[in-house]
Amino acid sequence: MIYLDNAATTLRKPDCVAQAVCAALGSFGNDGRGVHAGALSASRIIYETRERLASLLGCARADHVVFTANSTEALNIAINGALGAGDHVLSTDLEHNSVLRPLYRLQQERGAAVDFLHADTVGRIDYDDFERLLKPNTRAVVCTHASNLVGNMLDIARIGKFAKEHGLLFIVDASQTAGAYPVDMERMGIDVLCFTGHKSLMGPQGTGGLCIREGVELRRWKVGGSGVKTFLTEHPGELPTRLEAGTLNGHGIAGLHAALGFIESVGVEAIHAHEIALMRRFYGAVRGIEGVTVYGDFETDARAPIVALNVRSYASDEVADELSEVYGIATRAGAHCAPRLHCALGTREQGAVRFSFGYFNTEDEVDAAAEAVRRIAQ
Amino acid sequence: MIYLDNAATTLRKPDCVAQAVCAALGSFGNDGRGVHAGALSASRIIYETRERLASLLGCARADHVVFTANSTEALNIAINGALGAGDHVLSTDLEHNSVLRPLYRLQQERGAAVDFLHADTVGRIDYDDFERLLKPNTRAVVCTHASNLVGNMLDIARIGKFAKEHGLLFIVDASQTAGAYPVDMERMGIDVLCFTGHKSLMGPQGTGGLCIREGVELRRWKVGGSGVKTFLTEHPGELPTRLEAGTLNGHGIAGLHAALGFIESVGVEAIHAHEIALMRRFYGAVRGIEGVTVYGDFETDARAPIVALNVRSYASDEVADELSEVYGIATRAGAHCAPRLHCALGTREQGAVRFSFGYFNTEDEVDAAAEAVRRIAQ
Repeated sequence: MIYLDNAATTLRKPDCVAQAVCAALGSFGNDGRGVHAGALSASRIIYETRERLASLLGCARADHVVFTANSTEALNIAINGALGAGDHVLSTDLEHNSVLRPLYRLQQERGAAVDFLHADTVGRIDYDDFERLLKPNTRAVVCTHASNLVGNMLDIARIGKFAKEHGLLFIVDASQTAGAYPVDMERMGIDVLCFTGHKSLMGPQGTGGLCIREGVELRRWKVGGSGVKTFLTEHPGELPTRLEAGTLNGHGIAGLHAALGFIESVGVEAIHAHEIALMRRFYGAVRGIEGVTVYGDFETDARAPIVALNVRSYASDEVADELSEVYGIATRAGAHCAPRLHCALGTREQGAVRFSFGYFNTEDEVDAAAEAVRRIAQ
Repeated sequence: MIYLDNAATTLRKPDCVAQAVCAALGSFGNDGRGVHAGALSASRIIYETRERLASLLGCARADHVVFTANSTEALNIAINGALGAGDHVLSTDLEHNSVLRPLYRLQQERGAAVDFLHADTVGRIDYDDFERLLKPNTRAVVCTHASNLVGNMLDIARIGKFAKEHGLLFIVDASQTAGAYPVDMERMGIDVLCFTGHKSLMGPQGTGGLCIREGVELRRWKVGGSGVKTFLTEHPGELPTRLEAGTLNGHGIAGLHAALGFIESVGVEAIHAHEIALMRRFYGAVRGIEGVTVYGDFETDARAPIVALNVRSYASDEVADELSEVYGIATRAGAHCAPRLHCALGTREQGAVRFSFGYFNTEDEVDAAAEAVRRIAQ
């Protein structure tokens, strides 16, 4: 199988990831529950993972890195923990349902208001719309760093500057970029950064989290066992415990720890360069094929390594099925949990076939995929 | 290290667990996102894990087995999803903070009322208190199957009968029993069963969930990516998707799948018999040591394999430290997230040293632990 569905999850992980998870499965007690060697091994690796994430993502404090099961949970915690009745929020058409549905729920159940910056048919927003949509009760901007559908990146530093100028909380979904593109919360003016461990961070599924700038207070989400302050009726208020009730996914985090070590050793810039080169190679090969429509903005390399396309008017899932069954190429078809952007692109009915590249993909794989598209289009 | 902290997490797992996680880390795509071989392998194993859990725990429908990151999350989903303003809830002094804190929050933030059945100094409740505490607005009973502190088990079938007679929702925390004691939702009259994967189910951390009886509707918890029905603004309403937003911990669930296979092959009754025999051997050896106080009810074998004790008036954490550092024995001291039961036992200040046995412990380990207690007491 040629795996080109890295925007869904990186199937191929660095070898050290499985090794680390296996080692943890034979040695970890429960982090923060007990002082014996097993519990302490878990605590040590988990804390080091917070440190590696803080360093990678520009979070000033390792204890403000909170672990969750995935970025959807992180976004729910951020959105529900910061916003409520009477608040107005700005977001964009590029968002994944993990941003959209928590925002829609905020509108429906708590009376918040949300405005979305519209995307054009290439999936670009007009940054001046932020000013135009600003209201006296605007409290936050919530947006993705890069579209999971077409790979277009938002200028996070620019939006961060806007947010800071107007005293808005800035929540960013880095599900498609953390580990594969330079992210620096401080420099970009991000207040809460939500990430997943199993995509570009190359760690196991079941890992993810939030990095929270000092001074940002989020309401508790799940509450319960904390391993400390047992006699408090309220879940402890200090980060990271505040937002991490119950036993953490220590085994998964051990894998993420190893993956972060791998990313540090290769370097985010090198990973990005490799993935973008593969994307450019594929884009160059398919864009001119008769009957192929490619979506998104390829004028810059500041993007995620994704090429979304359709072949003639063929249903995208049928094209993906043929790619999988005839050519052994794994892609993803359909709507990709990105409903608003499909409406903007005009692909609501057809969906799109998404090719997303990862660090372990090769030029040969890219060429085989382009050739398969060419044959399907013929 | 002699590991006797299995009530916190089973450090030793069946070998098949790490093997399954490793295999998954090299082959799983994202469950429900795509139709290529990688995504389908993940979906198949995840669905089989639902089936195995449904079969083990007496849940009528595999698609009513919902995965969460841990039992704390499961209990938050159940308690917040079913109960609200004006509701009265019955619970007990045996509960872990993963039950208590969601209930306290329900009291403080939503105006629900909670009454707790008091435990005596042995950690037993008086079942007649259920009738005595019943009110016209009582909506639910939420309780543990077995105390994580002393191992005492509640008579779940009896409470289930009471709940049914009065039309109450019955939510059970099986964190200490699933996999190590027979649990049958149907027979015991349980509406929502919450479990964790990394304790007696012997799977990886980061796994857990709820089994939900048909007809019980829980409000959504986190919302977001679902992989289906992208254009719905509301997170889909069907189980299990309703309560499972975002990417599941596929790699961890693959380990749980293997652990469940191991449990099926050994048999829950055999696991329980082995663990209780170890507990009885330890209890028999330490109960008569001068200066040792053992807590809990040992009149029945319907209990979790736990012995909590103190040595004279020694601080429990100092005893646990000595057990760890001098004897290489891992236990857990302190309050164990069980504040109300410590108050009932009179150990609020001292805490207790908890020895909790698992399937891979041996008689020699038990004897070494008892001998260590004897020496510390001298």
